Amino acid sequence: MTTSPTTKIAIIGAGTIGLSLTALHLVQNPTCQIAIHDPRPDLQSYITTHLPTYLPQVDKATYQTRISLVSDLSSAVKNATIIQEQGPEETGFKQRIWAQIEGYAPPNALFWSSTSGIPASEQNREMKDKSRLVVVHPYNPPHVMPLLEVVPAPSTSADVVERTLEYWRTLGRTPVVVRKECTGFVANRLAFALFREACSLVAQDVVSVEDLDAIVSASMGPRWSVAGPFKSYHAGGGEGGLKSFMEKIGGTVQACWSASDEDVKREGIEVGNAWQDKICRQANESYGVVDTSTRDETTKKVLNVVGH
Amino acid sequence: MTTSPTTKIAIIGAGTIGLSLTALHLVQNPTCQIAIHDPRPDLQSYITTHLPTYLPQVDKATYQTRISLVSDLSSAVKNATIIQEQGPEETGFKQRIWAQIEGYAPPNALFWSSTSGIPASEQNREMKDKSRLVVVHPYNPPHVMPLLEVVPAPSTSADVVERTLEYWRTLGRTPVVVRKECTGFVANRLAFALFREACSLVAQDVVSVEDLDAIVSASMGPRWSVAGPFKSYHAGGGEGGLKSFMEKIGGTVQACWSASDEDVKREGIEVGNAWQDKICRQANESYGVVDTSTRDETTKKVLNVVGH
Repeated sequence: MTTSPTTKIAIIGAGTIGLSLTALHLVQNPTCQIAIHDPRPDLQSYITTHLPTYLPQVDKATYQTRISLVSDLSSAVKNATIIQEQGPEETGFKQRIWAQIEGYAPPNALFWSSTSGIPASEQNREMKDKSRLVVVHPYNPPHVMPLLEVVPAPSTSADVVERTLEYWRTLGRTPVVVRKECTGFVANRLAFALFREACSLVAQDVVSVEDLDAIVSASMGPRWSVAGPFKSYHAGGGEGGLKSFMEKIGGTVQACWSASDEDVKREGIEVGNAWQDKICRQANESYGVVDTSTRDETTKKVLNVVGH
Repeated sequence: MTTSPTTKIAIIGAGTIGLSLTALHLVQNPTCQIAIHDPRPDLQSYITTHLPTYLPQVDKATYQTRISLVSDLSSAVKNATIIQEQGPEETGFKQRIWAQIEGYAPPNALFWSSTSGIPASEQNREMKDKSRLVVVHPYNPPHVMPLLEVVPAPSTSADVVERTLEYWRTLGRTPVVVRKECTGFVANRLAFALFREACSLVAQDVVSVEDLDAIVSASMGPRWSVAGPFKSYHAGGGEGGLKSFMEKIGGTVQACWSASDEDVKREGIEVGNAWQDKICRQANESYGVVDTSTRDETTKKVLNVVGH
């Protein structure tokens, strides 16, 4: 399958994730055809205005012939080999649209949801064949970031997972299977755990928002770009690996975890509490409106260095 | 001050951190002189063998004239402008040695401890002038990683902090002031918070050690190399910044935090519990002994891309 001229992709939902995914397929899979389906009335002008911002290096004419805007869902998916959905994050919407798509799409088409939180086992409730749907959760923006979290439901077939991995590997991306449908999947769970500790430390005036970001960008960021946390601590243990690391540094690790638990509780680091105002104000003062195109260009260079 | 020919640095404790710091000063401060003090009996042969591995690109002769091995503490520090300590992580040792150093060192010399956990306010107990000592906690290995956490005691003078920052900025590093002496300082607190979540998810078989590392290296690592977590989420909120982000995504963030709390409690993710064996075993199976020199070379390239 995959990068042959026959790959026909239906993009269901053309918000920022949908456009970024469209750009990703167009660039990395140079022969694919893409049908974009979205109920917004200004779809044509919206696509014409915004899609090129995701495709700065590609001549407009080279991709215009490869995309079509399709207002009718059945026409959008009826010849598709891949159907990739990023509609509203509402369980009812997802359940309805997958049942509809199942009725229109070819029997072998892959069904992917970009949801960041609604598991395939909830989305597939009204489908006849619950083995077909799998969550493919991108890391934003997907035309830059290599990660795709592939999260099957218990009912998803191994063949669907395998073909999904194969497609993304062929495109040079990094699909990773999340073996259980846990809340938030893995990337957000990890990032939000660090984010909570970051909020707690700023709430306590240990550091400012800007200094905390400087700490991360001068330490864990570059380190984890090259070797993830387990590999890093495994290396930190020398020949004895992670076991030695835990024997030597475990006391410090536990002291940090215990202090963190106490601080988070005392400072009330739950969403919506008083600490949030301070952090949002500091972020505004330090950063204003962030220039994401510069950020993304630099991120591409980092990814290039680490072999993505 | 600083990079003039008069910078005389006393390195107290020549383990891996001491040697890495020695290499950092030698390379980044090309005129400094370094006295290395360590009680190990084989100091000469140890330095001859190991220091060059931190200095691959420098001709041995160019730095040999700039370092001296000094067995006597008083001689090591008596002309120093900077005294940088990385001895045993024992409060009693630190308290004794700083009282001794204070007696021998010039009145303007900077006193830096590389400790990862013993605050300056404990280390300075037996010093006459408690304003002189500050923690300068490097991120390992310091000859590669730009971060230095500068953690003053409440008694540390503003002048000591300022001169410390100035030295490291002159060397092109990233010193960041940690304003309160919290457990573990900031970098480890953040990294260990994510590490705990990582351990919890692997303990539950949501992902393997290797897949979790792949997720981080294809997402947060590169992202946070370019923009730290606050800046990233502030950008994620568009023109409304972090406030909009929290309004839109706050429910997901809180769901992840709550799930994390439950999982950590249920799985008993405290140091020394049963989960640890599985994680250490997987790390061994995936990584064996890590080649840190390749890792460090790639890390330098990432740091170069992001302007460090």
